[in-house]
Amino acid sequence: MLELYHAEPASNSLKVLLCLKEKGLEFVSHLVNIQAFEQHEPRFLAINPDGQVPVLVHDGTVITESTVINEYLDQVFPAPALRPADPIECARMRVLTKYVDEYFRPALSQIGWQLMIHTITDRLTPEEFAAKLARIPREEKREKWRIAAAQGYTAEQMAAWRRTLAEGIGKMEAALASGPWLAGPHYSLADVACFAMAANMPGRFSDIMSETVSPRVMDWHRRMRARPAVVAALAMPSPMQAAARARGRPA
Amino acid sequence: MLELYHAEPASNSLKVLLCLKEKGLEFVSHLVNIQAFEQHEPRFLAINPDGQVPVLVHDGTVITESTVINEYLDQVFPAPALRPADPIECARMRVLTKYVDEYFRPALSQIGWQLMIHTITDRLTPEEFAAKLARIPREEKREKWRIAAAQGYTAEQMAAWRRTLAEGIGKMEAALASGPWLAGPHYSLADVACFAMAANMPGRFSDIMSETVSPRVMDWHRRMRARPAVVAALAMPSPMQAAARARGRPA
Repeated sequence: MLELYHAEPASNSLKVLLCLKEKGLEFVSHLVNIQAFEQHEPRFLAINPDGQVPVLVHDGTVITESTVINEYLDQVFPAPALRPADPIECARMRVLTKYVDEYFRPALSQIGWQLMIHTITDRLTPEEFAAKLARIPREEKREKWRIAAAQGYTAEQMAAWRRTLAEGIGKMEAALASGPWLAGPHYSLADVACFAMAANMPGRFSDIMSETVSPRVMDWHRRMRARPAVVAALAMPSPMQAAARARGRPA
Repeated sequence: MLELYHAEPASNSLKVLLCLKEKGLEFVSHLVNIQAFEQHEPRFLAINPDGQVPVLVHDGTVITESTVINEYLDQVFPAPALRPADPIECARMRVLTKYVDEYFRPALSQIGWQLMIHTITDRLTPEEFAAKLARIPREEKREKWRIAAAQGYTAEQMAAWRRTLAEGIGKMEAALASGPWLAGPHYSLADVACFAMAANMPGRFSDIMSETVSPRVMDWHRRMRARPAVVAALAMPSPMQAAARARGRPA
């Protein structure tokens, strides 16, 4: 049995949802409301002490880290293959998934966090927020969230993260010059990882991702959105919607 | 033909050297003197625009990123296998190699950089150093090196990086409770990646890695050092030694 602990279909949670749907795998979905900091509650930390979603549980064994989970799923459920058989193409795939993890996703996450922090913290007293922060296992994340809430990031930091996003879209645009998909001829975990991040960027980052600056990325984005597995993954419920529904219509 | 562009046998360069030696692969060694910033010179940037070593060139095709290179080598030259056949063990391996890339290695690199920066910059005029900095492709690295040289990192930053190293050694100690090697029963790229970072830590970080605080890691470190491939990798020349020899005995 496969179980997935995940947030709304965006970022790292979307990354694993895209892979599961592409392979047509059934799984038990456990929604984690990261805007309510549920990923730092004791019952979730018992599953993943890092306090991060998504987490896959396969027949009782916990697997963490979205990039590792997707490689695992492709090894255990090889059809359809999402890792190119050609080793060079596979290396290109891994350079991109690694770049997403180390540069693109952190930049996007910081910008997103800055934009939404007050919709989260406004619902809490300072004491409640401090208590939630104190439970975050990783010091760097605790610090990042504290700063965003307290004073916000500087214009300089925000500009640097936007430059990273532009660099990443530039890498994707360059990669798509030599094949329909990011690693080359085959749809792969590189497309999955990049789309998980870029899904909602058109319109919101029009100076970085648009028909003018990244026509191949825009075409790829349209082809991604037309895939049934992508449609299915994006249709997965959001924990915030679920929580709002639960509040509006108590059982 | 395999060619490797690499620095001294430490950190990410050691990571790939360990893998090549373990598999008994012949390769052409191209030494890159990173203390002279050769990795940012135009002839190296033509090979890897990111300006980072190591770089593998296999029959003319460039492969970057040490973690990706090692996965590639294991796919193309599968004997002896350095990725566990068991998918769960393989996922444990990848969680560790990813942790090394994202947390452990950056922390170790910042500390090392702080300790050695002036042995590098003292040889240069401020103008020469500024010119070398300006060639660094990645903005974050440029900034990191500039700060280390200009004012040094704060005691707070250094302490945070030391806590990350302690966390990493703690993860290794915990992993070794359930098997002789870091991913479990089999020697893998997790051992390779962790040893590439921890090779020189005993003695230098005795509060973090010692018989008292990490006995299993110390035992593993001894078993690592006894492997012929590890001995061979550590015996690879250092570009600084080569440069010093060249200066001392001009042709």
